[in-house]
Amino acid sequence: MTLLFKCDMTAAEPWLEALANQMPDREIRVFPDIGSREDIEYALVYEPPPGLMKSLPNLKVIFSLWVGIDHLTKDPELPPVPVVRMVERCLTASMTEYVVQQVLNFHKDCLDYRALQAKRHWEQLELKAAWDRNVGILGLGTLGRDAAEKLAALGFNVAGWSRMQKEMPDIDCYHGSEGLSPFLARTHILVCLLPLTDATRGILNKQLFEQLPRGASVINCARGGHLVEPDLLQALDDGQLAGAALDVFEQEPLPDNHQFWNHPRIVVTPHIAAFSLPETAVESVVNNIDRIEAGQPPLNAVDFERGY
Amino acid sequence: MTLLFKCDMTAAEPWLEALANQMPDREIRVFPDIGSREDIEYALVYEPPPGLMKSLPNLKVIFSLWVGIDHLTKDPELPPVPVVRMVERCLTASMTEYVVQQVLNFHKDCLDYRALQAKRHWEQLELKAAWDRNVGILGLGTLGRDAAEKLAALGFNVAGWSRMQKEMPDIDCYHGSEGLSPFLARTHILVCLLPLTDATRGILNKQLFEQLPRGASVINCARGGHLVEPDLLQALDDGQLAGAALDVFEQEPLPDNHQFWNHPRIVVTPHIAAFSLPETAVESVVNNIDRIEAGQPPLNAVDFERGY
Repeated sequence: MTLLFKCDMTAAEPWLEALANQMPDREIRVFPDIGSREDIEYALVYEPPPGLMKSLPNLKVIFSLWVGIDHLTKDPELPPVPVVRMVERCLTASMTEYVVQQVLNFHKDCLDYRALQAKRHWEQLELKAAWDRNVGILGLGTLGRDAAEKLAALGFNVAGWSRMQKEMPDIDCYHGSEGLSPFLARTHILVCLLPLTDATRGILNKQLFEQLPRGASVINCARGGHLVEPDLLQALDDGQLAGAALDVFEQEPLPDNHQFWNHPRIVVTPHIAAFSLPETAVESVVNNIDRIEAGQPPLNAVDFERGY
Repeated sequence: MTLLFKCDMTAAEPWLEALANQMPDREIRVFPDIGSREDIEYALVYEPPPGLMKSLPNLKVIFSLWVGIDHLTKDPELPPVPVVRMVERCLTASMTEYVVQQVLNFHKDCLDYRALQAKRHWEQLELKAAWDRNVGILGLGTLGRDAAEKLAALGFNVAGWSRMQKEMPDIDCYHGSEGLSPFLARTHILVCLLPLTDATRGILNKQLFEQLPRGASVINCARGGHLVEPDLLQALDDGQLAGAALDVFEQEPLPDNHQFWNHPRIVVTPHIAAFSLPETAVESVVNNIDRIEAGQPPLNAVDFERGY
């Protein structure tokens, strides 16, 4: 079998090395050197040009190089083959690290202590046990579940919300539109790890913020499109929200003159929450190709009806 | 039995409430209303006046209200009864939260991203997997062990160093003076959770910093006396260290004019890393009194020969 590889702007070499190491018997073609289109059975791609995937007559599966698939669905003519999201252990682990980091920073009043340090002022604020702090995770896919488990292991009182009902030990699981309000009402620190779909675009808005307890914090490490940016600024200025940590933005890079940059209650990180390592990402692709060639359906295939 | 209670400046009420709730059959006396000294069998105290403990003829055990016992050993005439350090689940959990928070902040280049945000500059720095980041914990007592376990669960490559040999699953355990150099040589992020003794005072000094890989970070949440403050400033200015997070200081509150306050590579927190909750602290005292009355030795008794 032959695999077509196309990456984003990051260096291709470590990917090609990992592919060569882990798929020694398979031919790897690197875009734009496609060669004979008939040969290509698998594609591991970031943002393929519209129509390219459809032009490969024997394509069996498209592997997204990223966890998000918005870069693929820009192509209006994707062929009817399974599209697989990138789910791999480095990406999951690094996202969990970011979530735990930002939750702990809010739990431990990091923004307040930073401001006190700048004023050379020694003051101990009220301390709270993790089990008195309610964390809520929007989205219980691979990433949300892993973050929820690690936060619960640290002692936080964790709940999750998802479209469909899920069950997890030690996590209160809410679901559906009727589950959202009670989930928000008990959440001091909210984490968004939802996929971006028509149903979730703009979900982090005024109406949602108002259902959180006053002084809650919000962490968005999903997609910029989940957040209604002016609503966040308003909720922070009103005191409804105490802080936000944002890794993703409607426009990236975040424009120089954006109000988020110098807001004292917003932590801006430049879309670095999670990342894939070529070794671990290729490991997950190889596992999936082995499954497919053994006649099983691929793991982590996108359901286009639900949108992720 | 009767228990004498003396707290520090924090409010006594929640402690008295927890004692009343959890020891309904025992008499609690609150310093300075000691009453008949013969009655007192247990003391739960912070900084008792020198000689007070010795004046209680039937005293069986002294429980420290804090994890550190320096407030007790200021009394040169402590009677020869067991002294028990405060080890309780809120204190352990909150210390682990602080350690994990600061380790993740260094792992995720928090100080650099903060500086980039202040300059409105979008730049993605090199990303590293947790398993390529070596965390080293100085001290494998209750606090060090819990922090090490939680960091290993997040994927970090964790080692610990202690005076005597210890063993822990998934943690590389080094010990003794000959184990210190190899432990330091592999440690990117160093956490000090040692007890303060004659052997550990000033351990965080120039000679130690020089044995860490260049660009390492240091977290001190043990005692201010562990750190040689001018050596830290020198190591940061030389670039040998990339950052430090400090919760404890030689002089507390940290003086207004101290250089740590406005150092761009030092995070100062005002001794808030860990705290006890009266409920959980009294729970641990009650468990220990039950042990003692059943004829067993108390848990977490201080060994004055080793100094903790």
